[in-house]
Amino acid sequence: MDLSHIEQFIKSYNDFPKKDILFRDVFPVLTKPKIFSELINKMASCKICQDSEAIIAVDARGFIFGTAIALKLSKPLIPARKPGKLPGDLISKSYELEYGENSLSIQKEALKDYQNYLIVDDLLATGGTVNCIGNILHEANKNICGLSVVVELKDLNARSKLEFPVESQIIY
Amino acid sequence: MDLSHIEQFIKSYNDFPKKDILFRDVFPVLTKPKIFSELINKMASCKICQDSEAIIAVDARGFIFGTAIALKLSKPLIPARKPGKLPGDLISKSYELEYGENSLSIQKEALKDYQNYLIVDDLLATGGTVNCIGNILHEANKNICGLSVVVELKDLNARSKLEFPVESQIIY
Repeated sequence: MDLSHIEQFIKSYNDFPKKDILFRDVFPVLTKPKIFSELINKMASCKICQDSEAIIAVDARGFIFGTAIALKLSKPLIPARKPGKLPGDLISKSYELEYGENSLSIQKEALKDYQNYLIVDDLLATGGTVNCIGNILHEANKNICGLSVVVELKDLNARSKLEFPVESQIIY
Repeated sequence: MDLSHIEQFIKSYNDFPKKDILFRDVFPVLTKPKIFSELINKMASCKICQDSEAIIAVDARGFIFGTAIALKLSKPLIPARKPGKLPGDLISKSYELEYGENSLSIQKEALKDYQNYLIVDDLLATGGTVNCIGNILHEANKNICGLSVVVELKDLNARSKLEFPVESQIIY
């Protein structure tokens, strides 16, 4: 399936959220139900999606695409959240991102039934976020089938630093 | 459809995120694809969903349920986001919440094609968040068909303070 017509719905903003960052905004895609649905069908059809038992969705834009893929494939959905947002017994790791530093947590209980995970986010930049989730899953002795994103920023070369396959739909 | 069997997947945590708050965690529902799907079918079948042209999903847990309902009904999805997260021309309003203060923004561009909106979140507590979105939509001269949430905390009595109908699936 050719997704080149989707690219027109990704808007670019200079100097957001801070100077010298070119922000790729996937939200206009969401306002077009047919286009959004086509995108999700494509994302959900990849081998790493099929191989996974459960979907890890990255706080917060990843919740949108992770939810859509999990429902499409009838697979469990597990949100990875920013600090202070998740109750219960957690596995937490910190990471650096394109503009700042943060940490992510996953509820231990949510990982108990499955071994093989797909990570879903809107965009792959430096790969800090996804590497952090990789560290969480490693600590829990789990397997990562891969990462699925809408947009990949190839000049940041995150793909070569990750130890699992990456599926991206639009590459800048 | 009776949803009482879903209640067992909502976990309660005392003193989270701070003392004297009883946190209702809907995330265990997401790890059960059949239960999650039943919940979404029920949420998407209400009259206020049918009447709406587009879905406003509240950052961040509302993204999950808003996405699911928007895809189910093939309606446009518009995220309302916390400060500093959305690029472009915005409408922003501040609000008080159960534990703190915050603001929300919606991209003006996302509102241009539709008149009637459904707001979706995971939980209705004091209603501060949803009232804030109501103020954003009023400023844009838009109509609110209603609010759909998974959980409603009835002792906080938010429903009586809102000027639009509320559909909740589980009431504490």
